[in-house]
Amino acid sequence: MHAGSMQKAVVLVSGGLDSATTLAIAKSAGYACYALSFAYGQRHSAELTAAARVAEVLGAVEHKIIALDLSSIGGSALTDMHIAVPDHPSAGIPVTYVPARNSIFLAVSLGWAEVLGAQDIFIGVNAVDYSGYPDCRPEFIAAFERLASLGTGAGAAGKPFHIHAPLMRFSKVDIIRRGMALGVDYSLTISCYAADRQGHACGVCDSCRLRRRGFVEAGIPDPTAYR
Amino acid sequence: MHAGSMQKAVVLVSGGLDSATTLAIAKSAGYACYALSFAYGQRHSAELTAAARVAEVLGAVEHKIIALDLSSIGGSALTDMHIAVPDHPSAGIPVTYVPARNSIFLAVSLGWAEVLGAQDIFIGVNAVDYSGYPDCRPEFIAAFERLASLGTGAGAAGKPFHIHAPLMRFSKVDIIRRGMALGVDYSLTISCYAADRQGHACGVCDSCRLRRRGFVEAGIPDPTAYR
Repeated sequence: MHAGSMQKAVVLVSGGLDSATTLAIAKSAGYACYALSFAYGQRHSAELTAAARVAEVLGAVEHKIIALDLSSIGGSALTDMHIAVPDHPSAGIPVTYVPARNSIFLAVSLGWAEVLGAQDIFIGVNAVDYSGYPDCRPEFIAAFERLASLGTGAGAAGKPFHIHAPLMRFSKVDIIRRGMALGVDYSLTISCYAADRQGHACGVCDSCRLRRRGFVEAGIPDPTAYR
Repeated sequence: MHAGSMQKAVVLVSGGLDSATTLAIAKSAGYACYALSFAYGQRHSAELTAAARVAEVLGAVEHKIIALDLSSIGGSALTDMHIAVPDHPSAGIPVTYVPARNSIFLAVSLGWAEVLGAQDIFIGVNAVDYSGYPDCRPEFIAAFERLASLGTGAGAAGKPFHIHAPLMRFSKVDIIRRGMALGVDYSLTISCYAADRQGHACGVCDSCRLRRRGFVEAGIPDPTAYR
């Protein structure tokens, strides 16, 4: 089908495993995908390079990177160099939680969706392996969907928005299996919270640990480049 | 009272009349105010200069300007130089509506509030003279309040957020009278959608029209510098 006649969707793409799988799912569902990433003051730019690769290889119509300096707000190990990324699982909400990050990312996605005439937004959040992040819960996604339809011209005109979180109930193994079935090349993705400039993963942070275990449990060779 | 013992609030300050009044109201209610503005690709930087003046004069503890380039998304006369600011009122949602702007601004405010340990956010939206913007309605504010408590660590820990929109039911005359009573110097503020570099107002856009009529109806000399 020609891209011009397909329904458009904005897909949040971080460069990690989950969002790459989400993009592949949106594509396979027939959407013309507009990939959105943020330069938000994260520790390493390797993930933005990965996001660009993922968007291209998985056939996004366009990939936009928006600069938004959340490090000036601070409060997270992912954006504040003074807070160390932990090398062991933590109780409660981890220090890698970026305050209100998914609210912010979804709000900007919503703005772009409205300009594009899209009513669908995809985000790779996950309530199973979500490491305690409050903005990865189904109730949060439902609340944003309601906000989206109330706070936009399109919504006010009777065109509601749909926030798709297709990985919500998936385990990491489920995600990897689904992505492999859709042909995702996970060697392009970076999940590590503390990757180096070359994109090599640390292997010990929460995110690396979950990803590594996912490949082992799925019985699939882990394509991650560790340092 | 010492600022350290006061409750903190994040206040969105644009440099315009409404948000200056909102800041004065938050201050008079006893909050230690943290003013937040955005360099979002708006047509003129005069309003950010005005925001900084307003924050200082009205005694904000801190004023932060966050860069977020919404012009790369486009879709509004306020951020896209190819769309003209109209000099007459329009039917429906005006072209000066910036898609999802208040969702985006509130989401970033929420992130800062969580880092500060604040549970209160003030925004100067108004449903009376709101010119048809969907993200200025009470239902929108209520939906954001719900989202805020679901999507944050503080909210998940039982500390809900309150989104204050004290001007919601005010006419422009009410706003001006309230601000004057609180000592707001409106000559510091810029409301015009098409101000020049020196901050001189056009006098004909929707925003100028509403503001000018407000001063006339309030019986107060209009301190606006028109070009």
